[in-house]
Amino acid sequence: MSGVPDPERLARAALTYLAEPGDKVAGAWLRTCGAESVVAAVRTGGLPARVEARLRAEGEGDTSTAKAMRSWRARVSEIPAERDLAAAEQAGIRLVCPGDPEWPTQLGVLGDGQPYALWLRGSADLRHSCLRSVSIVGSRAATAYGAHVSAELGAGLAGRGWAVVSGGAYGIDGAAHRGALAADGLTMAVLACGVDDPYPRGHGGLFDAIVGQGVLVSEWPPGRHPTRCRFLVRNRVIAALSRGTVVVEAHHRSGALSTARYARDLCRPLMAVPGPVTSQASDGCHWIMREWGAVCVTRTTEILEQVAMVGEHLAPRRPVVAPAELDPVTTRVLEAVPARGGAGTATVAVSAGVDLDTTLSRLGMLAAGGFVMRGPRGWRLAGASGA
Amino acid sequence: MSGVPDPERLARAALTYLAEPGDKVAGAWLRTCGAESVVAAVRTGGLPARVEARLRAEGEGDTSTAKAMRSWRARVSEIPAERDLAAAEQAGIRLVCPGDPEWPTQLGVLGDGQPYALWLRGSADLRHSCLRSVSIVGSRAATAYGAHVSAELGAGLAGRGWAVVSGGAYGIDGAAHRGALAADGLTMAVLACGVDDPYPRGHGGLFDAIVGQGVLVSEWPPGRHPTRCRFLVRNRVIAALSRGTVVVEAHHRSGALSTARYARDLCRPLMAVPGPVTSQASDGCHWIMREWGAVCVTRTTEILEQVAMVGEHLAPRRPVVAPAELDPVTTRVLEAVPARGGAGTATVAVSAGVDLDTTLSRLGMLAAGGFVMRGPRGWRLAGASGA
Repeated sequence: MSGVPDPERLARAALTYLAEPGDKVAGAWLRTCGAESVVAAVRTGGLPARVEARLRAEGEGDTSTAKAMRSWRARVSEIPAERDLAAAEQAGIRLVCPGDPEWPTQLGVLGDGQPYALWLRGSADLRHSCLRSVSIVGSRAATAYGAHVSAELGAGLAGRGWAVVSGGAYGIDGAAHRGALAADGLTMAVLACGVDDPYPRGHGGLFDAIVGQGVLVSEWPPGRHPTRCRFLVRNRVIAALSRGTVVVEAHHRSGALSTARYARDLCRPLMAVPGPVTSQASDGCHWIMREWGAVCVTRTTEILEQVAMVGEHLAPRRPVVAPAELDPVTTRVLEAVPARGGAGTATVAVSAGVDLDTTLSRLGMLAAGGFVMRGPRGWRLAGASGA
Repeated sequence: MSGVPDPERLARAALTYLAEPGDKVAGAWLRTCGAESVVAAVRTGGLPARVEARLRAEGEGDTSTAKAMRSWRARVSEIPAERDLAAAEQAGIRLVCPGDPEWPTQLGVLGDGQPYALWLRGSADLRHSCLRSVSIVGSRAATAYGAHVSAELGAGLAGRGWAVVSGGAYGIDGAAHRGALAADGLTMAVLACGVDDPYPRGHGGLFDAIVGQGVLVSEWPPGRHPTRCRFLVRNRVIAALSRGTVVVEAHHRSGALSTARYARDLCRPLMAVPGPVTSQASDGCHWIMREWGAVCVTRTTEILEQVAMVGEHLAPRRPVVAPAELDPVTTRVLEAVPARGGAGTATVAVSAGVDLDTTLSRLGMLAAGGFVMRGPRGWRLAGASGA
């Protein structure tokens, strides 16, 4: 980990234990004086004078600040010791803060509602993976039709070098993740609980696969459990991480519509997949088409027309990061990938002189960036014509 | 028949034999000097000087006029004698011209492409029926899903006192007509052939029912057969007659999309019903949602939100014509309809002192105008609460 100094990192980690994400008071504090100062103030129970003045000037009254302070102070004992954070890291869980190379800078659109930090678990690089990603969301109680379409779109996007963001839930979310995985693509599950014990438990196998080939993402620290409120707050991150959001199948009151609302409010392309009007399973999709102007999409190419820059989906694997911006290790991995045919991960690792885990993670990043692709015969450079 | 003097009526009847509908040259002529002068010119082969001058001034070159003149002259022998027209009338076929009480004045939006006249067969009054009507169109090769939804919407609209306009074809059209008929509603089939021998023959039973409860409409005189070109030209009348057009199920290249295009170009509300994306049957619907801004509709109330004036579908049976505008016979029929309960057509006829056929036709007109409705116990005033 690099980029953010350790005291700031520790303070942000602590903040994820103290305050619920999306808290406007905490967001305004953070912007005003940084995480260390906020956490110190919570520990001592006193607000720095200039924070208090600024908050009052911006209309956040004493009442809300005092109330927030009370709830945060009640959680001070939950802040882990430094060695606990090291243990989490040993277990494959990493913390990414604004300013870190892996921080997805597009989350800045959330303003004061931006996550304090993100807890990640998995091999893919979050920032690179999200550069070219689409969120696919929908009902947990999906029909066979919805699950089928979701998996098809997940696989279709992955097959064109796009990553799939979703919420890891049963139904539409799970099908989208599985579709992306089946096409050897990248997928990110944004959770409303700790990445150490992802919910729902029944998706254990799916989450293991995502850890191996994508990444689990959470604003909540390890050990936290999901609540209805957390699912809804989480949805803003799903909408903000990706270039656009597709609602595949959603009832009128589905939580997926909250993700859709965030996408709309963030001015990200909002799309919906139609379905038979004889069931109510797609009612929410039809409603956001009619009321929110969600674009009716029926296949992968139509999604890419909405989210890709001009020409990007016509040459979908063209890198979105200049090769000169890659770090030396990643460059070595890239140079070890053949232009034609294909090579297994181990072969690439050996010729790059890089260990296997690092190679796999860098290949994932290179794939997300459009540099390489995984074909039936292994890794090869993207854009090359050899099968 | 009243309103239009006989020589003009005969000339317009002749014109439907001479020129194909939608012909811009004929339309410009008609506007310039009236039907009698046009037909006389075609019979003699010479253009009136001021017509020629005007056409040339408006950019309709001599070439197109000369060409049109040739094709019309070739059909002069097909113009029927007055007694043939009287025979058609005996057979229940009537001609309606611009200026007649039954002429649907909304066809004026078609400009020079307005029909020369319309041939009608059936009990309903065309103008009154269209005041509150919606077109439902779609593929002939409908799926069970599409046919079901079409019938549901046809019945739903009819049940709320709206008439259903369609093209009488197999598939979506037929299902829409049948739905309206099943709900004791009004329905109009706009044909691309003579109303004496409606196409397709397999819909003979359906057409008989429409003649009894609605009306068959055509720009072509009796005896004419449909062609692909005529179907497409006919579609502008479907779009122009109704307040809005709903495409229920249509492939990408379905003729129904030509009706949709006319509706869009005429600035009439254009709607489409979504369907499963796993079949291609609804591809055209999804496409016009995405590309033409067709509104996604899934049920009757959503259609009425698009086509009804504010509050109109909340009180759907409120008359759209003032009672004072009704003719004395219709007023007598209206006064014979009970406010509560219900009365059969014969009962109404007896208490109105009007013959049965006239009573039935006036009741249809009154239903289209929102004055009366047909309930399980017979006719009663609309808006009254008794069942």
